[in-house]
Amino acid sequence: MSEETVLECLFSRLPKADASVVVPPGDDCAAFNAGHGKLKLVAVDQIVGGKHYFEDGPEEAAPEKVGRKLLARNLSDIAAMGGRPMYCVVSIAAPPRHDENWIQRFYNGILALASEFGVDMIGGDLARTKEEFVASLTIVGEVNAKGVLLRSGAEPGDVLMATGVFGGSLKSGSHLDFMPRVEIGSFLGACGLVNAMIDVSDGPLIDAKRIAKASGLSLELKADAFPCRMDGLSMREVLTDGEDYELLFAVSAENVQVLTEIFPDSAVFLTSVGTFSAGNPGEVTVSGPDSVFEWNEFDHFS
Amino acid sequence: MSEETVLECLFSRLPKADASVVVPPGDDCAAFNAGHGKLKLVAVDQIVGGKHYFEDGPEEAAPEKVGRKLLARNLSDIAAMGGRPMYCVVSIAAPPRHDENWIQRFYNGILALASEFGVDMIGGDLARTKEEFVASLTIVGEVNAKGVLLRSGAEPGDVLMATGVFGGSLKSGSHLDFMPRVEIGSFLGACGLVNAMIDVSDGPLIDAKRIAKASGLSLELKADAFPCRMDGLSMREVLTDGEDYELLFAVSAENVQVLTEIFPDSAVFLTSVGTFSAGNPGEVTVSGPDSVFEWNEFDHFS
Repeated sequence: MSEETVLECLFSRLPKADASVVVPPGDDCAAFNAGHGKLKLVAVDQIVGGKHYFEDGPEEAAPEKVGRKLLARNLSDIAAMGGRPMYCVVSIAAPPRHDENWIQRFYNGILALASEFGVDMIGGDLARTKEEFVASLTIVGEVNAKGVLLRSGAEPGDVLMATGVFGGSLKSGSHLDFMPRVEIGSFLGACGLVNAMIDVSDGPLIDAKRIAKASGLSLELKADAFPCRMDGLSMREVLTDGEDYELLFAVSAENVQVLTEIFPDSAVFLTSVGTFSAGNPGEVTVSGPDSVFEWNEFDHFS
Repeated sequence: MSEETVLECLFSRLPKADASVVVPPGDDCAAFNAGHGKLKLVAVDQIVGGKHYFEDGPEEAAPEKVGRKLLARNLSDIAAMGGRPMYCVVSIAAPPRHDENWIQRFYNGILALASEFGVDMIGGDLARTKEEFVASLTIVGEVNAKGVLLRSGAEPGDVLMATGVFGGSLKSGSHLDFMPRVEIGSFLGACGLVNAMIDVSDGPLIDAKRIAKASGLSLELKADAFPCRMDGLSMREVLTDGEDYELLFAVSAENVQVLTEIFPDSAVFLTSVGTFSAGNPGEVTVSGPDSVFEWNEFDHFS
């Protein structure tokens, strides 16, 4: 059973939440009412040694990069809601080989990126394991209630758009160095032209499907429309490598052009990659070469 | 270097936080301004297999108890601030031997206790490790800004008081079954008679020292005043076993009697266990038998 299925099963049996919980679990962040037309956003993400980065060998990740990645993943979740990050807490469970110096360097990676995004680290916990390294970061952010973007807002006929480039994130080192799309996400939330959004952690194929499923629509993806991060990638790698941390979002067809014109960052690709239709919720058809995929290969819980 | 020292070193070099951060890291919870005279409280705590519970052997903990303990530890942090718990997010990094059933049972333990305390689980993350189990829970709570209790508020002459009984938490199974002192903590925050508070995770000796240090005072502890959880415990076990999850708090001498009279739970021991004085900040002298301790033995980061 995949990570997603385990969590879906859990979330489906949660009791009804307090009325202050405006966005229940299952989106990129949960949200609770913070008064004055604001929502507070909360998300949690982990990093596991040997799973989310190389712990040894020539590609061993510096502790600063590991810490940076942990925060960056969470910032990407805030970006996906159109939010602004504010606070974080970090728990670390580290083996003896990660001495105090390693741990402080890990924190340094978090703090350097936190400083760029105005995030305050407000708490932490530290425990020892025997062999394995696991760290978890919870992020708290804020968004105007009117500007929050969920996965579930896409409408039939909407165009699926993507920021940036895809595939080869591990090969290229992008998974350690990517810049979370917080400013762009915030723009997309505030501009009033976007109906739904998600960040791409598991590859655009799976994450686009998540928007379709949450919105109760089917989706036709143009596989060859996705810009590649590097030469020599197969279509399959572009669509399913994962760890792109780009944004996928739904815009009505008549708003695509104006959004493209006012899009604030000319250095970031903005591409139309699919179209939503009334149909089987979550059904994705892929046009282009290599278009047959085994879905169950692509869940990152393994 | 101990957990506490590593985190103190980290917290000491954090940049100045946003003005909305009312209680910076280093107390039982951090707090940020939530408007309308309220603060939101945030804390994070972990549970590590083989460290915080027995993973095998005759004392192997049921997954429900492991989940329960994880939430209960965090509830105790909210209690220590006088707060009310509201939301939690949970991340799990689990080895293959913990199958879907084990993981759902772990969640069940969290959810049963969450239900008792009105806590909504609003998010989670799930990853796989090779061998070790680590879970982290972040709790969000709320407290009236006027009623929040910090470690740093004790005054010279204040009496240190304790709820409940101490020692033998592992032996007795109390570390898995304890009831976090949320209602009592909330009462102590609201009653206006308490100057400082902490919850007892590392034993009353270490945690009392933390209040003294944060308040810039010295403390004389009456070792033999602490009620024992079970027969046959040494004074040392009572003071340093840890995992008691009781509350220690400072009250001016003239308010001890009235507090005792209005204390809302007659089933819970309420004991005077020490006196604060102007003196070396954090210096603790212990009166009673067995009163010489090696401090560095008692940090739980190892």
